[in-house]
Amino acid sequence: MSAPGAFLRIAGRQKLVGGFASKCRAANLRQARVSVPFATRRWGSTESDKTKSSSETESTTPQPPKKIQLTSEKYPEVKRDSRYAELTADDVQYFRSVLGSENAVMDGLSKDIEDDLEPFNVDWMRKYKGQSRLVLKPKSAEEVSKILKYCNDKKLAVVPQGGNTGLVGGGVPVFDEIVLSLNAMNKIRSFDPTSGILVADAGVILETADQYLAKQGYIFPLDLGAKGTCHIGGNVACNAGGLRLLRYGSLHGTVLGIEAVLPDGTIFNDLSKLRKNNTGFDLKQLFIGSEGTIGVITAISIVCPKRSNAVNVAYFGLPSYDHVLKAFVKAKSELGEILSAFEMMDGKAQNLVAETTGKKRPLEDEHPFYVLIETSGSNKEHDDAKLEAFLEGMMEEEICSDGTLAMDETQLQNLWSWREGIPEATKHFGGVYRYDVSIPLPQLYDLVLETRKRLEADGLTGKPDSPVVETVGFGHMGDGNLHLNVATRGYYKEVEKSLEPFVYEWISKVNGSISAEHGLGFAKKEFIGYSRDETSQNMMKDIKKLYDPNMILNPYKYI
Amino acid sequence: MSAPGAFLRIAGRQKLVGGFASKCRAANLRQARVSVPFATRRWGSTESDKTKSSSETESTTPQPPKKIQLTSEKYPEVKRDSRYAELTADDVQYFRSVLGSENAVMDGLSKDIEDDLEPFNVDWMRKYKGQSRLVLKPKSAEEVSKILKYCNDKKLAVVPQGGNTGLVGGGVPVFDEIVLSLNAMNKIRSFDPTSGILVADAGVILETADQYLAKQGYIFPLDLGAKGTCHIGGNVACNAGGLRLLRYGSLHGTVLGIEAVLPDGTIFNDLSKLRKNNTGFDLKQLFIGSEGTIGVITAISIVCPKRSNAVNVAYFGLPSYDHVLKAFVKAKSELGEILSAFEMMDGKAQNLVAETTGKKRPLEDEHPFYVLIETSGSNKEHDDAKLEAFLEGMMEEEICSDGTLAMDETQLQNLWSWREGIPEATKHFGGVYRYDVSIPLPQLYDLVLETRKRLEADGLTGKPDSPVVETVGFGHMGDGNLHLNVATRGYYKEVEKSLEPFVYEWISKVNGSISAEHGLGFAKKEFIGYSRDETSQNMMKDIKKLYDPNMILNPYKYI
Repeated sequence: MSAPGAFLRIAGRQKLVGGFASKCRAANLRQARVSVPFATRRWGSTESDKTKSSSETESTTPQPPKKIQLTSEKYPEVKRDSRYAELTADDVQYFRSVLGSENAVMDGLSKDIEDDLEPFNVDWMRKYKGQSRLVLKPKSAEEVSKILKYCNDKKLAVVPQGGNTGLVGGGVPVFDEIVLSLNAMNKIRSFDPTSGILVADAGVILETADQYLAKQGYIFPLDLGAKGTCHIGGNVACNAGGLRLLRYGSLHGTVLGIEAVLPDGTIFNDLSKLRKNNTGFDLKQLFIGSEGTIGVITAISIVCPKRSNAVNVAYFGLPSYDHVLKAFVKAKSELGEILSAFEMMDGKAQNLVAETTGKKRPLEDEHPFYVLIETSGSNKEHDDAKLEAFLEGMMEEEICSDGTLAMDETQLQNLWSWREGIPEATKHFGGVYRYDVSIPLPQLYDLVLETRKRLEADGLTGKPDSPVVETVGFGHMGDGNLHLNVATRGYYKEVEKSLEPFVYEWISKVNGSISAEHGLGFAKKEFIGYSRDETSQNMMKDIKKLYDPNMILNPYKYI
Repeated sequence: MSAPGAFLRIAGRQKLVGGFASKCRAANLRQARVSVPFATRRWGSTESDKTKSSSETESTTPQPPKKIQLTSEKYPEVKRDSRYAELTADDVQYFRSVLGSENAVMDGLSKDIEDDLEPFNVDWMRKYKGQSRLVLKPKSAEEVSKILKYCNDKKLAVVPQGGNTGLVGGGVPVFDEIVLSLNAMNKIRSFDPTSGILVADAGVILETADQYLAKQGYIFPLDLGAKGTCHIGGNVACNAGGLRLLRYGSLHGTVLGIEAVLPDGTIFNDLSKLRKNNTGFDLKQLFIGSEGTIGVITAISIVCPKRSNAVNVAYFGLPSYDHVLKAFVKAKSELGEILSAFEMMDGKAQNLVAETTGKKRPLEDEHPFYVLIETSGSNKEHDDAKLEAFLEGMMEEEICSDGTLAMDETQLQNLWSWREGIPEATKHFGGVYRYDVSIPLPQLYDLVLETRKRLEADGLTGKPDSPVVETVGFGHMGDGNLHLNVATRGYYKEVEKSLEPFVYEWISKVNGSISAEHGLGFAKKEFIGYSRDETSQNMMKDIKKLYDPNMILNPYKYI
């Protein structure tokens, strides 16, 4: 355990208490960290794209032009369901009569489907590739209604698609499903600057919505790496979690209403602008997180908080996971209403970032654990003072061993990069197995320890040529959301067998979730049993049957 | 418009800016206002018990021993559904074999049902009275399961009952339904002081849960007048809103899991302790606000925030509703993360309190509008400073005309009493028509103005002997939740005709909700059409059919 004076190296004990303000006080920055290019930022939400099987452990960065295997070839055990009709020229003619030719994009009825439709057939990770021959881009709920009614009558399968940034293959066709893209529904319908309630089309890009709100002093209550591309409708359909959940809560609480079209063409209009409405079942909740399986969300209504004036970021080294837990309780208590992020990274995760980037570490010594804390508040001086008192206590109570504060926006971005750079660092050696899971906080880090033990026992790590380079844990600690990454030198059947189903079984044992925020989609469909019992699964199937008896929406996925 | 110096009368202009701290700074008090007796506190949530028809406009305080008319006699148009079986001695024997005699309370199979079962047959407002002859008090989900399975097989109707504090007659039998009381399920199952996640039986009393959490430095994210009696399971079943919604959000966001028993006896176990879990439809959401119509909630899991160290209350006079809106925007912006209540009262509402109580007004002059603001934060000095700056701005920008701050707990309670005393004051003259509604903020107060106009045009107000004494508006402004109260000298057919369906139609026109927080129950069942379109109503009926095909749960109510 470090002595209370350890912070001195950075801040100076006296300064921490007294002159701290002038030397070490966090620079206060405008909220909503500057939007850096999508290619850089997206790491933040791509941690768990690797849960289907170890055959998917190749590098996960979007590889530019590269031949992508068809999903149907990669997973030959998944067969096209013969209940679905095949697209005919008459069908296309009908869709064109509804949408116009420019919004019913066809790629020839017979062959060579690779070109025009590839962006709609291939998922963002370039892991899944469908064979759709038709993309429809309706401009209104009424047009969506006509499309779905027709498809339902004709038994044509449909996959709704937002910004196509999903990580579990939920937004692209598996076979020849028609792609219903929300791209052309991208208008902000209304915003009330008094209540902060925004109503917008499903196809509005998250960053566009947030920038619109920024001008009015408000913030979208959701932030994630793919913000420059993802759609707010898709976010709601997938119940995205992201970076602001700790502060603003889940979409189940902030979404006030939705407009959705059911498979039979019925328009469900529940676009409420009310914070309270206790008149019957809250049906819209079913659509939040339904991943396009029971209806197509065409617009949402959401309550947005005021944008904070001040943002601070601090980064600590801690001697154990118990100390991380103590820090979390203390942060919740003392930073309370201004705490907007509490991210945990283990020492090995930070070592990998240091090794692979060659960057200078924020703290001189190495520590078993690190924590990144962000505060967002309405008053810079108050936030600084709270953080100061918090840091002082952290040192006095010997909860942290060392720490540093961002003094300007560059430093703030640099500190965040030590958290956001982990996914990139873990795939540096040739392969990586990633799991994005929820675990009750007290047991959260045990999964990392147990996984290491298991890999060691199986002789898969520890030597210079071992398959496993490192096993690291990090994540949105405030949400109980762990990212377990196993960095490997490539693809190894033994590693896969060592990890699966071990990891899922372990999570199931502690009543965790095998998918904290990315959903089920195609990738995790078969693993739902580890997080939901048979009763729940049957109840879900009943809901699916109720809304989509012909099963035309997003088949081969979810449940 | 008052000059900026008007605040002087209370605080002194100079003091407001400079020496304000010592003289007028709000006393900082422990959060969760001291729990005063239920009889006093309950006003806070009884504003809208009067929407069924004007025949219900008699005084609404619980009248001690007084003969209460049977619901079946009061509403002869509602008939007992012959699909339900009548209770037999065999049924009772079965229930006793499951629960033991002491938890299957019978009141004789034939006559004189008034005594033992009256507390279960009569609702808290003493407006509705059922004729149940059997109350069951299971102690576990398994016992609930056995009861419901039996009732479902035998077609015995059941009304689930929590603390029986509902305001729309949803928790008591209409005819001879069996009462399934959650009274005996009252254990706290677990609490994790790191994550703040509480798991508890449905029958735990809200105040008990909150007191338990207080000892650990946490707070239940819901507070309401009936806290000393209501059950947390009932709160969730009714999606209670209450006093902390502005700060902590709705139960749809804070409830992480539920355990519920379906009508066929199936136990739905979704008692998750995870903040994030994207593995399939979020079915628990259907049960939040379902008012006991599709299942019986037997336990909940909920994420609780840290208790704030400091609580301040301020009370202002304002010249117009536009100024109230401006104050709300300013409060959200400047008090941001510490704002925990923003309550609006019109001048006439405060006049009624002054007249009927004879209490000294908090402000010397009278004002067209009043606002009560509460802040809760982790740092007393910071909260004081924020409030100080806010008040200064309110005066400088001439948003408020006058104001005062609570300096100790007595003053804090006194300021709150000017908000909480309104329902009592409005029923002082012999009758009152109450509406608890949600309206988009910009139009919120228009309903009060339009209602006044209409009553004037109909010649029902303005003279010493007019039926209507006063029409007032107040409510949880932060939630867009208006309480419209029409104080009358008694019961008048003309007043009823003037108000209904006018009020509902007006609310429907601005896409408001006819029930913001109290639910539908028996009282508002027939008015749902004013807030939900036919599509939504049909979708709700489908959900009911799916879960309760025999319609045994809480019949004659909801949808």
